[in-house]
Amino acid sequence: VEERLELIRDTVSATQEGRHIILSANIELPEEVDDVISSGAEGVGLYRTEFLYLNREEPPDEEEQFENYRLVAERAKPHSVIIRTLDIGGDKLSESLELEEEENPFLGCRAIRFCLQNPDIFKTQLRAILRAAALGNVRVMYPMISGVSELRQANALLEECKVELRERGVEFNPDIEVGIMIEVPSAALCADLLAREAKFFSIGTNDLIQYSIAVDRGNDKIAHLYEPTHPSVLRLIKSVIEAAHRNNIWVGVCGEMAGDIQYTPLLIGLGVDELSASSSVVPRVKKAVQSLSLATCQTFANEVFEADTAEVILKRCIEIARAHYGELLD
Amino acid sequence: VEERLELIRDTVSATQEGRHIILSANIELPEEVDDVISSGAEGVGLYRTEFLYLNREEPPDEEEQFENYRLVAERAKPHSVIIRTLDIGGDKLSESLELEEEENPFLGCRAIRFCLQNPDIFKTQLRAILRAAALGNVRVMYPMISGVSELRQANALLEECKVELRERGVEFNPDIEVGIMIEVPSAALCADLLAREAKFFSIGTNDLIQYSIAVDRGNDKIAHLYEPTHPSVLRLIKSVIEAAHRNNIWVGVCGEMAGDIQYTPLLIGLGVDELSASSSVVPRVKKAVQSLSLATCQTFANEVFEADTAEVILKRCIEIARAHYGELLD
Ligand SMILES: [Mg+2]
Ligand SMILES: [Mg+2]
Repeated sequence: VEERLELIRDTVSATQEGRHIILSANIELPEEVDDVISSGAEGVGLYRTEFLYLNREEPPDEEEQFENYRLVAERAKPHSVIIRTLDIGGDKLSESLELEEEENPFLGCRAIRFCLQNPDIFKTQLRAILRAAALGNVRVMYPMISGVSELRQANALLEECKVELRERGVEFNPDIEVGIMIEVPSAALCADLLAREAKFFSIGTNDLIQYSIAVDRGNDKIAHLYEPTHPSVLRLIKSVIEAAHRNNIWVGVCGEMAGDIQYTPLLIGLGVDELSASSSVVPRVKKAVQSLSLATCQTFANEVFEADTAEVILKRCIEIARAHYGELLD
Repeated sequence: VEERLELIRDTVSATQEGRHIILSANIELPEEVDDVISSGAEGVGLYRTEFLYLNREEPPDEEEQFENYRLVAERAKPHSVIIRTLDIGGDKLSESLELEEEENPFLGCRAIRFCLQNPDIFKTQLRAILRAAALGNVRVMYPMISGVSELRQANALLEECKVELRERGVEFNPDIEVGIMIEVPSAALCADLLAREAKFFSIGTNDLIQYSIAVDRGNDKIAHLYEPTHPSVLRLIKSVIEAAHRNNIWVGVCGEMAGDIQYTPLLIGLGVDELSASSSVVPRVKKAVQSLSLATCQTFANEVFEADTAEVILKRCIEIARAHYGELLD
C-alpha cells in the first residue's frame, strides 16, 4: 500500500467525477514544510505557531517570527500557507506569556481571547505574518473565535498593524486573506454572520466536538462521549458548510477527522472544500478521495442523518470506507 | 413595588392575551418549598438534590431520599415538583461520592455521566423518586444529557427500578413523566431526536451558554464572553422550543435567564411554556409576564434575530423591558 501511495503523490486530489478536494497539511514547526511538499499536499492548511512561544522566557519578537513564517511561505510557494495566530492556553502553557492557572482551562483565557487581551503580543505576530505574506501565498487564521465581535476586534488590530508597517515603510501584503477556525459551538451556530466577514473557515473538529458534547477527551472517565459522528456534530458541520457556501467562501476541516479516512466520504458528502491533515496521512487521504464518487458521498451524507446515534453513524462510515478502499484501512 | 407584587400572588401568570406562562420555582433544600407556595409559584420547576450528598461520608439511602422528596411533593400538591437527579461534579464535589479531581471539571464526569457510571447510587435515587411520585405530582429530570444514548441508558435503569419496586411490593408511580435538561449544546442540536423520547425539556441556560461559547463564567478573565443574548444562544433556544413543540412536549427555562426580567419578553417571544426561577423573584417575573402581550414578544423575538451581536440584542431587551415595566427593573 505504501508503495502505491508513493505513486499518486503528484496526482490531483479529486473524486471520480473530478471534484477537487484541496488536500493540505498541518505543521507545528517550520522544518516540517519539507514533509508537506514531499507528501504531495497542496500547501499548509494549518501552521501552528505555538512553538515560537514555548520553553523560553520572552515571547519572540517580530523579526524572529517573520523569519520563521517567511521560510515556510517561500518553501511552499506557489501553494498557500495558512498561519494560525497564537493558540496558547487550554492545555498549552507558556512560561514566556505568564498564563495563570485556571479551573477549566479549556473554557478559559486561551487563543484569540488571550491575544485580544494582550494586543502587543498579538500585533507583533500579526505584523510578522503581514510581512511574510508579501513573500508568499500566506493567509492568516484566528483560533477560538466565538462570534462576530471577536472577529471585528481582531481585524481592527490587523488594520492597526497595516498602518504601522506602512509608516515604517516595510513591505507587507495589505490584502492578506483572513479566515477563522470554527471550533466553538457559538461560532458554528452563527457561521452565516461570520461568513460575511471572513474569507474562509477551517473547522477544528477536535475542539468543536469537545465543546458541543461538553467533554474533555483527555479525561479517561468520559472520553467515550467524545464522538465525531454524534448527530449534533454532523449537523453543525453541515450548517457551517452551507452558511459558508451561501456566502461564497470555502470551508476546510483541520481537526483529526480530516486525516482519518473513516470520515472522508462523510466530509466530502457534507461539502467540505479542503482537508488539512498531518503530512504522514496525506497520501492515504488522497487515495481515499480518488476512490470515491461525490454523488455517492452526498447520498451517504444525506442518509446518515436519519440515524440518531453516533454508534450507528460510525458503523456506516466504516462500511462505506471499507467498500471503497478497504486496503487503506488496516 | 414590593407591596404591589404581594397583591398579585394569587393571580395567574398570563400575558395580556391570556397566554399562560407557567411560573415555577427552583429549590435547593426541601424546606424552601414553603417559600415556593408563598411566592405564588405553580410548583417546583427544579428541585436540586445535591444537598443530600454533600458534607457527609456515605451517600443517602433510599428511605432518607424518599422522605425528602415526599415532603416536597405533598406540600406542593396539586402543583408539580420536578426532581432533578444528582447533578454532582463540575464545581460541586462531594466527599461521599469520592469524585476525582479533573483538569476541566465542567467538561468532566458530572451529573448524568457520573450517575450512569455509578448505577447503584443512581438507582437508589430513582427508586426514591418513583415512590414519592405515588404521593404527589412528581416528575423526574436528568441533567447534562448529551444525546439519545444517554437518555435511553438512564431510562433503562429507571425501568429496572420499577421492576425492583414492584417485586418489593412498594407503592410507586410507574407512569412518572421523564424530562431532561437541555444544557449541553449537542442536546440542543438534536432536540428533535430527544423530544421523541422525553415528556418535557427544561433549558439550563447557565450551562448551555457556558458550553456554547466555551466560557467558564466563574473565570474573571473571560467572564465578559458569557453573554445570554449571544445570537447563537438565542438560535439554539429557539430551535429547541420549535423541536419540542413539533413533538408536542413543553419547554421550560430554569437557568438564571428565567428569573431575570430583562429577558422575559425575549423568552416568551421565543415560545417558552414555563419559567422556573428562585422564589424571591417569582412575583416580579409574574408581574412582567402580565405586563406583556404575546404578540409584542413574538414580534420582538423575530426582530432581534436581525442583530448580529449580543450587545445590540441586550440593549433591545432592556429597552422593551423598560417600556413595559420600568418600575420593576430598578
Ligand atoms: Mg482548537
Ligand atoms: Mg447545569
